[in-house]
Amino acid sequence: MSTSYADDSLMLHTDLYQINMAQTYWKDGLEEKKAVFELYFRKLPFGNGYAIFAGLERVIEFLNQFKFTESDIEYLRELGYEEVYLDFLANLTFTGTVKGMKEGELVFGNEPILRIEAPLIQAQLIETPLLNIVNYQTLIATKAARIKQLIGSDIAMEFGTRRAQEMDAAIWGTRAAYLAGFDATSNVRAGKKFGIPVAGTHAHSLVQAYRDEYTAFKKYAASHRDCTFLVDTYDTLKSGVPNAIKVADEEKDQITFKAIRLDSGDLAYLSKKARKMLDEAGYHDTKIAASNDLDEKTIMNLKSQGAEINIWGIGTKLITAYDQPALGAVYKLVSIEEDGEMVDTIKISANPEKVSTPGLKRVFRIINTLTRKSEGDYIAMDSEEPNSEDTLIMFHPVHTYVKKAIRTFEAIELHQPIFENGVCVYNVPSLAEIRSYVETNLELLWDEYKRLHMPEEYPVDLSQACWDNKMKRIAEVKEKVASRK
Amino acid sequence: MSTSYADDSLMLHTDLYQINMAQTYWKDGLEEKKAVFELYFRKLPFGNGYAIFAGLERVIEFLNQFKFTESDIEYLRELGYEEVYLDFLANLTFTGTVKGMKEGELVFGNEPILRIEAPLIQAQLIETPLLNIVNYQTLIATKAARIKQLIGSDIAMEFGTRRAQEMDAAIWGTRAAYLAGFDATSNVRAGKKFGIPVAGTHAHSLVQAYRDEYTAFKKYAASHRDCTFLVDTYDTLKSGVPNAIKVADEEKDQITFKAIRLDSGDLAYLSKKARKMLDEAGYHDTKIAASNDLDEKTIMNLKSQGAEINIWGIGTKLITAYDQPALGAVYKLVSIEEDGEMVDTIKISANPEKVSTPGLKRVFRIINTLTRKSEGDYIAMDSEEPNSEDTLIMFHPVHTYVKKAIRTFEAIELHQPIFENGVCVYNVPSLAEIRSYVETNLELLWDEYKRLHMPEEYPVDLSQACWDNKMKRIAEVKEKVASRK
Repeated sequence: MSTSYADDSLMLHTDLYQINMAQTYWKDGLEEKKAVFELYFRKLPFGNGYAIFAGLERVIEFLNQFKFTESDIEYLRELGYEEVYLDFLANLTFTGTVKGMKEGELVFGNEPILRIEAPLIQAQLIETPLLNIVNYQTLIATKAARIKQLIGSDIAMEFGTRRAQEMDAAIWGTRAAYLAGFDATSNVRAGKKFGIPVAGTHAHSLVQAYRDEYTAFKKYAASHRDCTFLVDTYDTLKSGVPNAIKVADEEKDQITFKAIRLDSGDLAYLSKKARKMLDEAGYHDTKIAASNDLDEKTIMNLKSQGAEINIWGIGTKLITAYDQPALGAVYKLVSIEEDGEMVDTIKISANPEKVSTPGLKRVFRIINTLTRKSEGDYIAMDSEEPNSEDTLIMFHPVHTYVKKAIRTFEAIELHQPIFENGVCVYNVPSLAEIRSYVETNLELLWDEYKRLHMPEEYPVDLSQACWDNKMKRIAEVKEKVASRK
Repeated sequence: MSTSYADDSLMLHTDLYQINMAQTYWKDGLEEKKAVFELYFRKLPFGNGYAIFAGLERVIEFLNQFKFTESDIEYLRELGYEEVYLDFLANLTFTGTVKGMKEGELVFGNEPILRIEAPLIQAQLIETPLLNIVNYQTLIATKAARIKQLIGSDIAMEFGTRRAQEMDAAIWGTRAAYLAGFDATSNVRAGKKFGIPVAGTHAHSLVQAYRDEYTAFKKYAASHRDCTFLVDTYDTLKSGVPNAIKVADEEKDQITFKAIRLDSGDLAYLSKKARKMLDEAGYHDTKIAASNDLDEKTIMNLKSQGAEINIWGIGTKLITAYDQPALGAVYKLVSIEEDGEMVDTIKISANPEKVSTPGLKRVFRIINTLTRKSEGDYIAMDSEEPNSEDTLIMFHPVHTYVKKAIRTFEAIELHQPIFENGVCVYNVPSLAEIRSYVETNLELLWDEYKRLHMPEEYPVDLSQACWDNKMKRIAEVKEKVASRK
């Protein structure tokens, strides 16, 4: 049986190489050597035009608890690390400064979501858990936003716990879905922990247990005020819907006949027929819920066929991000202390998309003050102040001839102070606030960036200074490699 | 900020409808009504010929802690449930009997992995967490077994934490990979919790931090006895490998030059060239590790091109089961108490594959005593004893004319007692034991069932009695539905 620790911590929820590299730095006397890392992804998931940043709350929780526990140190001792190094680790606290996007922010490829300035050792130790958290939660928030966008004012329910990739995914995934616009979850623990509305009525097993559909509905109605009946256990139109209507007729004001739920068969056909039956029986307000491996494609097809569905239960395809189950966010060193000075660093790659952008940078969203829509994001060096410029030249960081000049703009800085010298300075918003922040933000985007299939590419541009700095560093590295040969 | 509870529990890690159905049963006086559920999946994942059951340890841990805590009850109170019902829940303990496969067992479609006999209410409440655990862990164990099978005696490392779907997936996923044959993980917390060997040396950032590859390797060597150098930060063949060899030459016996690691570029070409360079320098025992979005397909292609790779680092594609990120295990009612008697139940579906098999059943693996290979699995009614039969007739449950008669066989019962009346009676094996159980078990399968692409279908057959019972129940339901019209 595996071991449970009373002093369980997440400090070892990291890759072993972080601890090995830390040992090298520590042994080399570099425990205070400063470094700046940026966390970002390169490519938007699902071919979507934007992503929604989620995970910040758990990142903060993790950093606030940054401290090796006794059992952590004991385990590292078993692995054979030296006592003096273990002493150093045992006394380590997080003293770094973190800036980053607000949770719920619209984010795009190649822009820093989080920026960590900390002693190199600390910055390395937190890399793995930060990526683990942000990659998954951002992925699910983005998936959920796609679905919510498609169904508009219909209700979206997260139903995926049984198919989630273990328990944390079920919990934090449903939180991500909710902040991106979902309306409720079936997971009661997520409701308890995050205050997300919970929903659900009964399964096929209730009908099986009573061995008769009418009896099952009747018993459910006797024990619940709000009733949603699952009508597809035997035959939706011949048995399920008629039995639901019969029970509702009999119970009258004793229950609220909220909805019927379809979980199999042709949802377009069945929902239209069921709608007609409900309307004819006078249940115009009774909604129709549907579920069964739904994703953007099936929902769009059902909608285009005029399916009469008002409530969408989304399970597997959302909670696992089925068509792309991982986001590839990375964590790259952009600046490091050398002889007491900070020096920008770059990682070169044979693949130009993978070359990092060196230096300490800020990210601005450029709002056109005439349209109140975003013109794109603008990455500038720390010292730059785009708002003090009359005209902002925005050019594509790869195809540099693609450019535009903006005169009527407001540059909104997207990075917020999260930690300052190890102390959390961020006022964590409520989930409701994050949710409404997402909604407001999405209005800043022109529709062409929000198309689910083949959206326009939203501009994420570098300032001239930022671009020049990158080119200079590339030239330096090339020269160095050439001189080595 | 979300709420952390001192008395946190997993009891609410379930779908709300379970609690709502439980209320119906309780209100109807059925709190002791007995039910039997089976947990099984219908279709093997990844087109594989077998799956490896994982998750039992966590299932046992969960059932051992089955008890609503004060904060659970308080939350349900906020949702508006009646006090008397809450009292009932607060006092609920698990009294059920669970039988099931051993962890690490080879499992196939449509055979019960776990069988839960318990009061209906209890059996329903545990459905969601059981599926959540078993679906993910079984998926990853199966994926890992595929990869391990392909690389044979090479070393397989699990590297996926940063891309895992949140933290539980990283931890339990790597455990599943290890029990299915992986050799080590990069996740230190998994090492601490499960005793899995941990591995890892340094990242590109070490080279970046020292701004010089040779210095970085030198510093690493000064602080670690065992050295694996990551050689692709600048140029693998012109800089990385020569620098690694230079440092090894200089350090001599001060270090063990374990391996070099390639993380980009053409792994086949680079590994062959690097092997030659290492051999020429006399480092025949130094291994070559490779990583970079590897999965079965890339590994097979690399192998077929003669790549000189001995250690495979597998991340994203394993830990998320990228090509099929969910297993669809279900939990179906097969028998229920009615007037003090147990009655078999069935769920009919328009899709014949989804019709459940009613009644209390046992699963046997039929070993041919001449070949010591498995002839298939045999699902029989509880009362049957296949070992007492001279000849076992095995026929396909759908294409019933496909049949064979086995005379020299031993029927090994696969279900073990796990819980008896709420008490765990199972002696949980060590991870090492599970791992070697998997290895031994795989030898029972003919190679044609183990082919990664398009394997033969392994027989999972019903006994005649089991098949007859299913047909009888189908006829009964059809008659009932017909008479309703």
